[in-house]
Amino acid sequence: MIYADNAATTRISDAALNTFITLSRDTYGNASSLYTVGQRAKEALEQARADIASVIHAEPREILFTSGGSEADNQAIRSAAVLGLSKGKKHIISSAFEHHAVLHTLNKLEKEGFSVTLLPVHEDGLVRPEELEDAIREDTCLVTIMYANNEIGTIQPIRELGAVCRKHGVIFHTDAVQAIGHIPVDVEADNIDMLSASAHKFHGPKGVGFLYAKKGIRLTNLIEGGAQERGKRAGTENIPGIAAMATALKEAIASLSERAEYVAARRDRLIAGLSAIPHSALNGDATKRLPSNVNFCFEGIEGESLLLLLDDRGIMASSGSACTSGSLDPSHVLLAIGRVHDVAHGSLRLSLGDDITDDEVDYIIKNVSEVVTYLRGFSPIWRDLTAGKKPFIL
Amino acid sequence: MIYADNAATTRISDAALNTFITLSRDTYGNASSLYTVGQRAKEALEQARADIASVIHAEPREILFTSGGSEADNQAIRSAAVLGLSKGKKHIISSAFEHHAVLHTLNKLEKEGFSVTLLPVHEDGLVRPEELEDAIREDTCLVTIMYANNEIGTIQPIRELGAVCRKHGVIFHTDAVQAIGHIPVDVEADNIDMLSASAHKFHGPKGVGFLYAKKGIRLTNLIEGGAQERGKRAGTENIPGIAAMATALKEAIASLSERAEYVAARRDRLIAGLSAIPHSALNGDATKRLPSNVNFCFEGIEGESLLLLLDDRGIMASSGSACTSGSLDPSHVLLAIGRVHDVAHGSLRLSLGDDITDDEVDYIIKNVSEVVTYLRGFSPIWRDLTAGKKPFIL
Repeated sequence: MIYADNAATTRISDAALNTFITLSRDTYGNASSLYTVGQRAKEALEQARADIASVIHAEPREILFTSGGSEADNQAIRSAAVLGLSKGKKHIISSAFEHHAVLHTLNKLEKEGFSVTLLPVHEDGLVRPEELEDAIREDTCLVTIMYANNEIGTIQPIRELGAVCRKHGVIFHTDAVQAIGHIPVDVEADNIDMLSASAHKFHGPKGVGFLYAKKGIRLTNLIEGGAQERGKRAGTENIPGIAAMATALKEAIASLSERAEYVAARRDRLIAGLSAIPHSALNGDATKRLPSNVNFCFEGIEGESLLLLLDDRGIMASSGSACTSGSLDPSHVLLAIGRVHDVAHGSLRLSLGDDITDDEVDYIIKNVSEVVTYLRGFSPIWRDLTAGKKPFIL
Repeated sequence: MIYADNAATTRISDAALNTFITLSRDTYGNASSLYTVGQRAKEALEQARADIASVIHAEPREILFTSGGSEADNQAIRSAAVLGLSKGKKHIISSAFEHHAVLHTLNKLEKEGFSVTLLPVHEDGLVRPEELEDAIREDTCLVTIMYANNEIGTIQPIRELGAVCRKHGVIFHTDAVQAIGHIPVDVEADNIDMLSASAHKFHGPKGVGFLYAKKGIRLTNLIEGGAQERGKRAGTENIPGIAAMATALKEAIASLSERAEYVAARRDRLIAGLSAIPHSALNGDATKRLPSNVNFCFEGIEGESLLLLLDDRGIMASSGSACTSGSLDPSHVLLAIGRVHDVAHGSLRLSLGDDITDDEVDYIIKNVSEVVTYLRGFSPIWRDLTAGKKPFIL
């Protein structure tokens, strides 16, 4: 069994699970309580906050714990919108291939009177800083561009985009859910004002994430109630989950560069192997991408059939974002980089684990090649191509 | 060590923790994925949904998983407000001693143009169905009244309140965070349209809860993004946490009546013992209260000092809601049942665990009595009382 869907979710690490278990058993108190067990919980909470802040070069008070990346994205954008509204600024810039947690929140804001500019991401899956600068207006209150794309893994020029925002005094938020724990992220050097992260993408538990918001940015609550998280996020703190997230992040950071180098080498081996399949194409830039991400289109293929047959052969992969699977629409990410509908339907995302081996990579190449050939035997699109119709992918 | 703050949070049960561990290790897939591990996760998710629905006599599709009770409260109220708005109905009825997740959400809606009526809860801590009926207007779109109060444990006449709402065609929501798993809750018999619950209050994990919304009630998202939870709550599902919540709830329900009887007997022993302290008073009705809840005011005492000295003696308790501890304001719940500020400051909540023993109850009685006597030795209020000033509590 090869689990190659780590962009959808990762297995919690043993160390993170142990933290969860230990705190669940021994530090079960409510962190808002005065007595000893409660105060121990409070200490664990603040230690996790300090650990996480330190990893991204933030201050502990700039870290707000949430139930995950989607909640963090929603709260960041909503907060910037409220701040913008108070200054009469109702324009937001984002990109065409953001996560739905960003795009759907922007849709909602459009209905409330905001205007939204989505920057193109071009064929290489990269936003251009100069195009961002051109798009900034007097009334722009927020730029939100993801650190690394969840489907095609392309890493944006975040530092340059952030610098443009700083120059124009516009709040810069980045959905770093796919980046944190996998590539270096430094909110200070990267000129980031707000950042969203999710524990289960870096071998932490599900249902936990955090929002970084630079000191001075006033957050708006999504969840009203108790005074937890400086009054900005109500609900009893999930201390075992939060502490497990900190454990997972520290673990990920400790081995980050070696892991990235190791996995990227297997990624490149996999890309080379799959590129040999006729009428196949890598989606997104070949080098400015996450070490673990491989995403291909195979002309004449239905992605869903490909996934099911690969599952039979012990390979777990996806066609794109897990959040939208089950939907019949082609990926908005692949459309954004210029793939036509038919081709976008034939996509395969392989997001490799840290322990992927060369043998496993070769097994994937062999089986994807076989399954693609097999499926093309039934494909009317493929039949047209072999009959002389010009393919989209040469 | 006696942990008597189970209303703030409970220790996760061994069975629930085991479910969490097993699913974290073996069923880590993303429930939205097509391959086997993802589908196993999906099955675990839907089994948990069915189990939880069955406990409260709902249908599985009426259960939405959230990050906890606060999120569920926020989403329920926000959804009813959106529905009300679409019909021009902008009046909401609640009670004076709701949880802040309800009251603060209502405050926010008031700023958006809604009007809110807070029903009195009287000295016994109970809402009167006839007063609810009197308060309902043509433009009432929601009644939200908690099942059992989190500070004084009084159990509301939910079935009768629900019947009034049904009669007038108004949506009825109840924050059942303190009730679920401790007393029988049946959304059908109780005439409930929406209900909030939180796993960590019934020995489930923290950071997980659910919202029941009767079929036909259209929910509004708090968190936009992926298509999880029928598109009504974005974010990768926390399957280990959700399944652990279901385990904890099934466990709680299996032993509910025996546990309730056992704990209520110790509660009554504790109430009898603490009532012997001069100028002390039980807060809330003596019998219409949660089996585990004891809440007293002791005249001339600062609640915080009482808690710290009890902690020294191995008794973990609280002065009221954990969500507001640290605040210098007296409890809005105690003010709502008519306690004056000075008296409300001298409150003690003991929320008993299922395994509380008679010996432990006697230990609590002895130590609370001693500490109250000790603290009154320093209390200017108590000096005035002994000098002849009329006490509030006779």
